[in-house]
Amino acid sequence: MDIEQFRKAGYQAIDRICDYYYSLQQSKFPVVSEVEPGYLKPLLPSAAPEVGEDIQVIADDYQKFIVPGYTHWQHPSFFAYFPAGFSFEGLLGDLYASSVSNPGFNWIASPSCTELETIVLDWAAQMFGLGPAFFNSSGKGGACFQNTASEAALVAIIAARSAFTSKFPDAKMEQLVIYTTTQTHSLGVKAAMILGLSVVALEVKREDNFSLRGATLRATLEEDKQKGLKPFILIATVGTTSSGAVDNLAEIKEIVRDYPELKVHVDAAWAGMSLVCPEYRDKCYLNEINEIADSFCTNFHKWGLTNFDASPLWVRDRSYLTDALDFTPPFLRTAQGDAGTVIDYRNWHLGLGRRYRSVKLWFVLRGYGIEGFQKNIRKTIALNERFVEHVSSSSLFKLVAPPSLALSVFRLEPKPTSEQIPEQSLNSLNELFYGRITARKEILLTQTVLDGSFCIRFAVGSPRTCEEHVDKAFEILTHEATLALEAWKQTVTSI
Amino acid sequence: MDIEQFRKAGYQAIDRICDYYYSLQQSKFPVVSEVEPGYLKPLLPSAAPEVGEDIQVIADDYQKFIVPGYTHWQHPSFFAYFPAGFSFEGLLGDLYASSVSNPGFNWIASPSCTELETIVLDWAAQMFGLGPAFFNSSGKGGACFQNTASEAALVAIIAARSAFTSKFPDAKMEQLVIYTTTQTHSLGVKAAMILGLSVVALEVKREDNFSLRGATLRATLEEDKQKGLKPFILIATVGTTSSGAVDNLAEIKEIVRDYPELKVHVDAAWAGMSLVCPEYRDKCYLNEINEIADSFCTNFHKWGLTNFDASPLWVRDRSYLTDALDFTPPFLRTAQGDAGTVIDYRNWHLGLGRRYRSVKLWFVLRGYGIEGFQKNIRKTIALNERFVEHVSSSSLFKLVAPPSLALSVFRLEPKPTSEQIPEQSLNSLNELFYGRITARKEILLTQTVLDGSFCIRFAVGSPRTCEEHVDKAFEILTHEATLALEAWKQTVTSI
Repeated sequence: MDIEQFRKAGYQAIDRICDYYYSLQQSKFPVVSEVEPGYLKPLLPSAAPEVGEDIQVIADDYQKFIVPGYTHWQHPSFFAYFPAGFSFEGLLGDLYASSVSNPGFNWIASPSCTELETIVLDWAAQMFGLGPAFFNSSGKGGACFQNTASEAALVAIIAARSAFTSKFPDAKMEQLVIYTTTQTHSLGVKAAMILGLSVVALEVKREDNFSLRGATLRATLEEDKQKGLKPFILIATVGTTSSGAVDNLAEIKEIVRDYPELKVHVDAAWAGMSLVCPEYRDKCYLNEINEIADSFCTNFHKWGLTNFDASPLWVRDRSYLTDALDFTPPFLRTAQGDAGTVIDYRNWHLGLGRRYRSVKLWFVLRGYGIEGFQKNIRKTIALNERFVEHVSSSSLFKLVAPPSLALSVFRLEPKPTSEQIPEQSLNSLNELFYGRITARKEILLTQTVLDGSFCIRFAVGSPRTCEEHVDKAFEILTHEATLALEAWKQTVTSI
Repeated sequence: MDIEQFRKAGYQAIDRICDYYYSLQQSKFPVVSEVEPGYLKPLLPSAAPEVGEDIQVIADDYQKFIVPGYTHWQHPSFFAYFPAGFSFEGLLGDLYASSVSNPGFNWIASPSCTELETIVLDWAAQMFGLGPAFFNSSGKGGACFQNTASEAALVAIIAARSAFTSKFPDAKMEQLVIYTTTQTHSLGVKAAMILGLSVVALEVKREDNFSLRGATLRATLEEDKQKGLKPFILIATVGTTSSGAVDNLAEIKEIVRDYPELKVHVDAAWAGMSLVCPEYRDKCYLNEINEIADSFCTNFHKWGLTNFDASPLWVRDRSYLTDALDFTPPFLRTAQGDAGTVIDYRNWHLGLGRRYRSVKLWFVLRGYGIEGFQKNIRKTIALNERFVEHVSSSSLFKLVAPPSLALSVFRLEPKPTSEQIPEQSLNSLNELFYGRITARKEILLTQTVLDGSFCIRFAVGSPRTCEEHVDKAFEILTHEATLALEAWKQTVTSI
């Protein structure tokens, strides 16, 4: 394809993306794809073509075969998982970045890639109220993009293990322990699997809203010390995936003071974006993050209006990362790196090559401004509050945990009447209910289990979601709940 | 920004990308940026704006402040590192993919993302001549994108370690050893640092063209067995970064037969693309890869015309990955995953979220066809052969290793005349020479060290590079070599 053919195909791509977003706004298609597993294989040839094909044919096939197989994360009725960030500003920034296809591992691999990342992540740190210790401009701490929050946590764990074993070279791998809670994202267990280390999931309780308490941490630390174990990092969560729980960093702060070897990584992958609003900083323990977090991660590609991927990791001390990850062979040496005058980000993460993501975030931060970010957070939290009102005024549903920011966890649990449903039956009823919801393609919600209770998550966050979509979703939930309840009663009666 | 504002800004972005590629074709600017470390900070505000800004201002600032700080990897005179893939087809595919901002971790997260990846990587496997055991359609083996070849190797090592410790649960972490060679990319040492494991770099010799020989592998295995060590994986390289060396997989095959516990990962990040041409399959040991590799990686984002990132990892047995990496919390369970009818790619790599990359590769494979891929490989190898002819016919330079595909490693070493330069002085002379080259912004080459010799790499691969650019580069090298030689002689005389 020559440059003029690209211009034509590029305009068309822009037009088709515009069409796609008009269709989304008008909910012209359901959020969930209608396709069945294996749908695509019979539609495509079994091998790459021998001779190149015309871009128009390829672009048309994309519309015909690929688009129908999407789950539309930008759909206004997407309430599953957590939202996937998107904005036109981000898309344009990504387009410009992709157009130079730069692996950006060294400063010299493209000076502006590295320098824009240091600047734009300082903007973000400031916007969230992170202390200057975390700024790249501090020369000591700093931030860079990782691929995902899971990898950010993995990197933090590797750095903490390296710091620990440097200080205690006699510590055996078998003694090292990662602390998470029973509500921590799978990233904790997965990191332990990857590193061949042990993980201890600290107990959290329903009455504490699934938040880690200081007393639990202290008791476990003391117990593990007795056993000869060496806990070297705590993965604390601000906004768990299941229920949006926030570990009690105020209490944790008091404990970690007595255990200076225990590093603290704060995973705020989703909820961290709310730090842009002063009114949510206490809930998210901003002060404590600034006091005790060795590392902190929040994803712009979730609630932060930025296309996947944009997952920065901040550290208080960049040598925490480079001590664990810097190895420089001769073919990667550069005059600027040798002189120590530049950051070579490849030593801050797992891989060598890295995507060029800063221009995308720069476009988003400038296009929205701090005010635009705040507006987006406040709007989605208000939509969740609207959903909570619906749930509270309904006789069918009950919240399983207090709503957290833009997330609610609920289940079908009719208000006690003459015909009360025994606690042990509620799970099967809700599984039946959730099965009915997943069969409806026009809304998407995901399931979870809290303290043994099967329940359903409602996470708002697509910028296109409005009150009408929340109301419509609740209407569908009510309808399906009623039918599930009837079906369930019939099953019970027939037994 | 609303949809119509995006359309306008999108057209402009396409136009500006066209302008950029016209400028590159005409070498309107040098390959290396003129900026100095820290150039960007004084040019940008110190914080994100309070209120959103107009996209036109942002896009103009991008041209004004960011573009001048690029190292232009797509420039026809880029001969550094390895080429970074790019094509308009890839850029368009990436644009469509970014427009749906999909984290693609589960089948249901978007059926087409997963299904297209399984199909397109089978196309690629077929195109390279990989055996059907590696195909996703085999139901047993398969492939998925990792973030980089370094991460692909890391994943392979984790899988191998997991397989080994499952079989030998009494093996201590301290006994486990990763095998690389002294010429393996830093990814080997870095993986060991990440995992807290030991690495043994097997010796390779100049007379073997820096290729790992079977005898060395066998001797090291026997020696390490004596020491009680447990080598569990060999990272073999097809096309090392320093010199394009290819480990002798024909000999290695004979050895690993006797050591079934030793897994083999073949890293062909750069050279693997040449497998598309039948005439390079023997050099790259395709048959042996098909016989003994447990995993195999090659990067489309290097020599494969595809924008960063596109780094697939093939495995002979997908449970090799999932046994090591699958952990499924309740909130990630899906009906299709539970039924086992789909692939959930999140269990094949380190992170949870993943970029949607298959559409990009699909566009590139279809746009170029197998023929187009072959043409690109053959053209760049021919350009390197042209460079080699220049070197061979010059009295100034000498190849330090045999040219490998599109890579040559050489140094300034004037043909013996009356005034011969002592061997021990050649390194300082070449450092002086390389210093002069790096001061020239219109070409970019990188340095390396081979068997103690400081030398310079010449790697061809930008699709825009033509004979005239190779000739021009050689002219500059000759000019700077002459000046370096004069300067060096003066220094020597003055001592």
